[in-house]
Amino acid sequence: MIIDSQGDLTLAVEQAMAGTPDGRLREIMGALVRHAHAFIREVRPSEEEFERGLDFLVGIGQATGETNNEVVLAADVLGVSTLVGLLNKPLDGVRTAPALLGPFWRKNAPECALGDSIVRCGTPGSRLEVRGQIRDLSGNPIAGARIDVWQASPVGLYENQDADQPAMNLRGLFTADASGHYHFETIRPAGYPVPTDGPVGDLLRAQLRHPYRPAHIHFMVTAPGHATLITQIFADDQERLDSDVTFGVLKPLVATFETTEDGHPALRCDFVLEPGETRIPKAPIP
Amino acid sequence: MIIDSQGDLTLAVEQAMAGTPDGRLREIMGALVRHAHAFIREVRPSEEEFERGLDFLVGIGQATGETNNEVVLAADVLGVSTLVGLLNKPLDGVRTAPALLGPFWRKNAPECALGDSIVRCGTPGSRLEVRGQIRDLSGNPIAGARIDVWQASPVGLYENQDADQPAMNLRGLFTADASGHYHFETIRPAGYPVPTDGPVGDLLRAQLRHPYRPAHIHFMVTAPGHATLITQIFADDQERLDSDVTFGVLKPLVATFETTEDGHPALRCDFVLEPGETRIPKAPIP
Repeated sequence: MIIDSQGDLTLAVEQAMAGTPDGRLREIMGALVRHAHAFIREVRPSEEEFERGLDFLVGIGQATGETNNEVVLAADVLGVSTLVGLLNKPLDGVRTAPALLGPFWRKNAPECALGDSIVRCGTPGSRLEVRGQIRDLSGNPIAGARIDVWQASPVGLYENQDADQPAMNLRGLFTADASGHYHFETIRPAGYPVPTDGPVGDLLRAQLRHPYRPAHIHFMVTAPGHATLITQIFADDQERLDSDVTFGVLKPLVATFETTEDGHPALRCDFVLEPGETRIPKAPIP
Repeated sequence: MIIDSQGDLTLAVEQAMAGTPDGRLREIMGALVRHAHAFIREVRPSEEEFERGLDFLVGIGQATGETNNEVVLAADVLGVSTLVGLLNKPLDGVRTAPALLGPFWRKNAPECALGDSIVRCGTPGSRLEVRGQIRDLSGNPIAGARIDVWQASPVGLYENQDADQPAMNLRGLFTADASGHYHFETIRPAGYPVPTDGPVGDLLRAQLRHPYRPAHIHFMVTAPGHATLITQIFADDQERLDSDVTFGVLKPLVATFETTEDGHPALRCDFVLEPGETRIPKAPIP
């Protein structure tokens, strides 16, 4: 199409893409162009602003490497990653909501007995018990479910980021009892910042946003005949619970504290698995 | 905000960005998030589709180097670059519409007398005369305006891309006469493809789109007291005039053919300059 005014452009691009044989690609790109053009028409960027936007896109691509993905981080801090996750798995009040695996999971966490502590060599911190039950969609307990847990220390570092922690500190693999229950001892994790040395860090600073995720404990729960559940649990008394920089705090993933018989705090973390297959992810590059 | 459903997310992100001190950044990012979330809600990408989209963004950033900008190219082939240009300088029927400088302009084109040919050493091709007048917004001729022209050869290559062409072939710098008129001899340029060896080339192939820009001649027109005009002119009998892969064919930039007194085709290219300053761009990296 020969362009007569800015109003022609969206139709011109849609017509150019109309021959896309893959119907889903045609649908996605058509919607992308309509929404992108609507955005441009709303904000009317100057040429300089447009150039800065393009430079930002170049920057996040080029800052992405084997161990960090600045494009994913940009999607995270704009709420897009959580939005995609929730559209694919809406919170339904029954199934436990999934969360991202994150970059810190390791294979072969130490096998533990119920009640063991995952604190190795006495990392100082505030004592915490975690306990709960694994159930299926009908509410039946899943005996022998496997619970792989990992968390940051009270200074906000995972053991594989921190020379001061022993190997496999704050990691453990538990097996639920015949009633689907599990429990273990740990210390309170701390929140930690997303990487701030790239273009996304610059954006957060320009927006006066803090870069922190609130403290959480990661879980991967598996059982034969059930889909692997990867999630993370937040404690309801934590700082910044309502300002996670990645918008990852879903209400059903906020656990509440109970008090144990001997007066210590215990975090109650129940999990509901769907039918499906056990799929263990590849370990992320540390 | 603790997220209770996908419907919470847009407001959550807007609230997180509400403290941005720069009002324009706040406005742009707020609109970006609203439009991006609306796009995601419309197409509901699966996790795999979302990952492919993020990988595409990483890919165009990483394919960008000193001599090619795949992010700009993506904006071009989605009509976004032309849209931004037209919003900043709407076609008003008076001022000549600007166009991109492009990567092939060179400083210090050979100084030519009116009527000279810019074909050096007999590059074969179909003879073409180009002529026109430079005027101001009131229609008064601008005597002595300088017209810098450059174009691709009939095989679609600029001299600095093509070992078979002599240096500065198909480039020239002319000075309008006292009535603002200029004319020169050349040969018909050919269209040429945008780079197709990166992720944008993959996208064009998946959309069954050709990668060509229709043939055009570039002009940079300067005169004291007037803003530098950078534009490009298309001839109205050219192939793919209505399917420029970058949506750059603006109706007022399509010139028509006249016939010279001796029966040769002549392309009529008049230019209207606005008041302003002469600004010569930095030469792009060849």
